[in-house]
Amino acid sequence: MWMMVGGLVVSSFYAKAQLPTNDSLAIKALANSILADDAIMQNLYYLTKKIGGRLAGSPQMFAAEKWGLAELEKLKPSKVFTQSCLVPRWVRGKGDTAFINYALPNSKKLVSKSLAILALGNSKGTTKPVQAPVVVIKSFTELEERKAEVKGKIVLFNAAFDATTVQPFREYGKNGVYRTTGASRAAKYGAVGVLVRSMSGGTDNLPHTGNMTYNDSFPKIPAAAVGLHDANFIASKAASNASITLHLHGTNLPDTTGNNIIAEITGSEFPNEVITAGGHLDSWDVCEGAHDDGAGVVQTIAILRAFKQLGFAPKHTIRFVLFANEENGTRGAKAYATSFENSNSKPIFALESDAGGFTPRGFGFTVTDAVWEKIQAWRTLLEPYLGDKFVRGGGGADIAPLNRNFQTPIAGLQPDGQRYFDHHHAISDTFEQVNKRELQLGAVNMAALLYLVDKYKL
Amino acid sequence: MWMMVGGLVVSSFYAKAQLPTNDSLAIKALANSILADDAIMQNLYYLTKKIGGRLAGSPQMFAAEKWGLAELEKLKPSKVFTQSCLVPRWVRGKGDTAFINYALPNSKKLVSKSLAILALGNSKGTTKPVQAPVVVIKSFTELEERKAEVKGKIVLFNAAFDATTVQPFREYGKNGVYRTTGASRAAKYGAVGVLVRSMSGGTDNLPHTGNMTYNDSFPKIPAAAVGLHDANFIASKAASNASITLHLHGTNLPDTTGNNIIAEITGSEFPNEVITAGGHLDSWDVCEGAHDDGAGVVQTIAILRAFKQLGFAPKHTIRFVLFANEENGTRGAKAYATSFENSNSKPIFALESDAGGFTPRGFGFTVTDAVWEKIQAWRTLLEPYLGDKFVRGGGGADIAPLNRNFQTPIAGLQPDGQRYFDHHHAISDTFEQVNKRELQLGAVNMAALLYLVDKYKL
Repeated sequence: MWMMVGGLVVSSFYAKAQLPTNDSLAIKALANSILADDAIMQNLYYLTKKIGGRLAGSPQMFAAEKWGLAELEKLKPSKVFTQSCLVPRWVRGKGDTAFINYALPNSKKLVSKSLAILALGNSKGTTKPVQAPVVVIKSFTELEERKAEVKGKIVLFNAAFDATTVQPFREYGKNGVYRTTGASRAAKYGAVGVLVRSMSGGTDNLPHTGNMTYNDSFPKIPAAAVGLHDANFIASKAASNASITLHLHGTNLPDTTGNNIIAEITGSEFPNEVITAGGHLDSWDVCEGAHDDGAGVVQTIAILRAFKQLGFAPKHTIRFVLFANEENGTRGAKAYATSFENSNSKPIFALESDAGGFTPRGFGFTVTDAVWEKIQAWRTLLEPYLGDKFVRGGGGADIAPLNRNFQTPIAGLQPDGQRYFDHHHAISDTFEQVNKRELQLGAVNMAALLYLVDKYKL
Repeated sequence: MWMMVGGLVVSSFYAKAQLPTNDSLAIKALANSILADDAIMQNLYYLTKKIGGRLAGSPQMFAAEKWGLAELEKLKPSKVFTQSCLVPRWVRGKGDTAFINYALPNSKKLVSKSLAILALGNSKGTTKPVQAPVVVIKSFTELEERKAEVKGKIVLFNAAFDATTVQPFREYGKNGVYRTTGASRAAKYGAVGVLVRSMSGGTDNLPHTGNMTYNDSFPKIPAAAVGLHDANFIASKAASNASITLHLHGTNLPDTTGNNIIAEITGSEFPNEVITAGGHLDSWDVCEGAHDDGAGVVQTIAILRAFKQLGFAPKHTIRFVLFANEENGTRGAKAYATSFENSNSKPIFALESDAGGFTPRGFGFTVTDAVWEKIQAWRTLLEPYLGDKFVRGGGGADIAPLNRNFQTPIAGLQPDGQRYFDHHHAISDTFEQVNKRELQLGAVNMAALLYLVDKYKL
């Protein structure tokens, strides 16, 4: 029934079945297709175990692009294409170390203890080990109050996640600024290095890396994340003249070319009105990037697979995008948004999965009041699939430019967030932490939302 | 303010703080207390790693009782006491094995492959290995249709979880009957042994044990659970004259005495009206019993800890019960219900956590229409803690007799169910599979519900 509407015959040659016209039944058909689809875990296994960490510009990034292109082509959408963009090329280097040097209790004997650290992405290396007394700071307010103490020191930003906050993403939102800007804020007052308490409320001592940027007005000092137990240990020794020895090896190579990998089902009625669904293909170098964001990538592919299996021919064009370089530049996001400038295509909705492959709770929407009112009626359709909790605010780093530049309504899948920061940007973000059914249910809710947006528009 | 109401002064000597009178603030205070409580994981660690599997009558069961009693006494409730009951004493024995014997393709050569099995609880052993051709049956309907083929055979009940069912508990409810009654149903038609496809929708090959019972009218044949991949393998070979060799060593020793372990905060106004909260202390022998039901046990203790920390003096008596012998007899549940007979105490509400320590979704209620209507208003109070999905039906095996015998309204915590049957009754039900925050949030919602029931009654 879709194929003749609007006079365009697109994708219909592949139609093996038709979705029921009843929304509830159509969504059930999508759910059945996705929940029976073991390929989603095979995809995730390949991306995480065979390719692994795939930071922008790395050989693994290129392998992931090639793999993504091939996987999308297998599904025979209307077309598959790439969008190139320059991406940064930061390399961690080998042999990063940090030690705390402190006096044993009731002794003047100094001892050193190795610290669990990971250099932050974009951090400069040190030509030789930097040793300096440590100052422990809990907030930028405290930094301003104690700025006179910071000169020549290594600062530990030690802001902890508040365990009584139910949604850990809020703590990440609050504390992330110490990771992204702490180094230059401390360098302004003469600090020679920075450690940042890992962005996690977990129970272990794994360090969690992530991006940082320098303010060019101040010296570019080395910066690393430190595990939670070690951050506590440093804090316990700070009053007794402890020092830190920090030796990092990060370096920035020239930008290189990365690619957004895109599959499209061209719309049967409104081919120039584009709905976007995606996740990001890159990850940090030190982990498998299973939840961040292998999950979003394989969910995106699974939705396309289900749409094709069910012969769904949308009225609007739907693009399935594996974004480049979310972690340290969002250059893929910018290139994607830019592609709509001076184009006769218009982005009418975008949906991202970049909050982990955990059991779905719902979606966060950045939309107008009118759209917000309209979508409330869809909650009962998603309730059987556990994705009916709608909140205002949300989207994803890769689709945010569409909202900023074109006022496109955007949404982000919101899985349960309790486990996410146990693994985020740490070596424990592995395939084993992903549950097949939770991952599939996220894709089910995304597929349902895309179906509804296509059918009813926003 | 609680302590003088009704003229009873109970527990108030321990009151260090008072709960706010505003419900939302009171629940926030409970949440803050529980979310900041690391003892819940220390408790779970001890129960799972230091004691381990604790089947009724085993030395570990006695160790768990002793531990539970000591933990409850530490918290200085109004009183701590035990209720004894006779519990079964089934022992797995050592050296259980199963093999499938089949001809290699295009060959008459027979080979044997070891199968991943676990004897079902209560299954008889075999004095020597039993070898017989295998018949694969998917339902009791099919068993009746093919009853003539079963004589002298080993039956594999091979009913799989339907992946398209969103709530795996429904599949367990549907298929569990093959585990619990399949042996006698097959023995009726002359089968000499039974394998049951494990009650799981997981991706691995771990066998999942669980209880079974014999119908005394038929021979008591050996019964074991088999891993999902091996069940598929047997099914793939069944048409080509495969046989199974089964050697089990289970045995029933005389009943022994177990105990419900109970802490009580005596009610300030209605001491004879009893609210119950609990989980079960026993587990299967082969695993740590972390989700089933270490989680429920340590949540129950954590709620008592929070109530005491906040000086909560309930109007009604609240009993915190660590039930004996849920897994293979529910004798503790029966003893607890019996304790209200010929007593001047009345059970007015009971709540159990026995569906895993995963992130909470809500509660299942077995209540009257009037109660169901009344509690709807509480959902908004639980929504910030993720436990606001209320469904009808539910409770728990340990509190079901209260509903049956006294029409007591009962409820069961309903955590997200996607991961539960990956680990249920399998060796993978370990401490490592439990996330601290998910476990705590379950306790938060339980504490809130108990607080509301005490304040407003049902």
